[in-house]
Amino acid sequence: MKYCSNCGAAVEQKIPAGDNRHRYVCNACHTIHYENPCIIAGCLPVYQDQVLLCKRAIEPRYGLWTLPAGFMENGESTEQAALRETLEEANAQVIIRSLYTMTSILHVDQVQMIYLADMPEPSFSISDESLEVELFREDQIPWDALAFPTITNALKFYFSDRKTGHFPLRHLAMSRSDEGELCCELGTHQ
Amino acid sequence: MKYCSNCGAAVEQKIPAGDNRHRYVCNACHTIHYENPCIIAGCLPVYQDQVLLCKRAIEPRYGLWTLPAGFMENGESTEQAALRETLEEANAQVIIRSLYTMTSILHVDQVQMIYLADMPEPSFSISDESLEVELFREDQIPWDALAFPTITNALKFYFSDRKTGHFPLRHLAMSRSDEGELCCELGTHQ
Ligand SMILES: [Zn+2]
Ligand SMILES: [Zn+2]
Repeated sequence: MKYCSNCGAAVEQKIPAGDNRHRYVCNACHTIHYENPCIIAGCLPVYQDQVLLCKRAIEPRYGLWTLPAGFMENGESTEQAALRETLEEANAQVIIRSLYTMTSILHVDQVQMIYLADMPEPSFSISDESLEVELFREDQIPWDALAFPTITNALKFYFSDRKTGHFPLRHLAMSRSDEGELCCELGTHQ
Repeated sequence: MKYCSNCGAAVEQKIPAGDNRHRYVCNACHTIHYENPCIIAGCLPVYQDQVLLCKRAIEPRYGLWTLPAGFMENGESTEQAALRETLEEANAQVIIRSLYTMTSILHVDQVQMIYLADMPEPSFSISDESLEVELFREDQIPWDALAFPTITNALKFYFSDRKTGHFPLRHLAMSRSDEGELCCELGTHQ
């Protein structure tokens, strides 16, 4: 951020009165421009003993497999966002079962929410965002070609929890160390 | 938004290629400025048979009672945000038990997450953000002086769930009708 979106003057970084963090502040119109994490919402669609994955047709991670998910928009709920993304990316209509994973991804300022969802029909197709869309059994999952560690986590939790039939919310925080190493912590509760 | 935060030129609202929503777009540097919901994170702190409320020292809803909660910042997890807000607003250190309510508030583009949390000690005090901080038993809750309907919801769920000792995640969507009426829907799952 270099310019004030309200008046067009240059912004500078400083700690506003009563605050304790650096913000982009406009010295002309005095607007404080806060920056906050975004929500990524999506589904883990299940049909019988298979899960639905999409091969990304867009960057980042073009050509790798992911669950249908994307940025939550203004004016919708987290569930509506998850359903919309599943429809847009995989042309699949699903029924949400429960919130399944919630991961704060600190190094990119995102919170990712994946809902466990049922597919009443094995109906899906490719889209502008997906080169391929396919159902996979556990032994068919392309573990080495998954797009994001959060997706790997969600799938591992799913196949593990499926043995018990109990799918509790998995609360995680992920961050990147100074050495670039990815660190994933379970929440203090389950 | 009137000006591009990247180059300072005027922005206009239009639907970018490959998109289906109006965005603020800069015709000079071609930046698309997305706007997304913010996360409000907080706690419902419990000490024995009492819950902790804060009387707001800031607008909106100055002088009304609320749970300690506020905007999640970049670089922290949702849990860290909830703990930080509880410390900042009530000087209370709590231990998170579980995610308890998640409410998409459509008319203000917010997602509010309230964590159920235990207070090991009845230790708390006022702050720049709270005129008063107090523990309340169920029969002492100032129901008519609560700041937000989401807070009323969380407290009602809590005192109801306390009878069973089971505190499932409550998933809600709240919106305002054209007539200004507030409408609150439970999620499709619990
Ligand atoms: Zn300005
Ligand atoms: Zn620009």
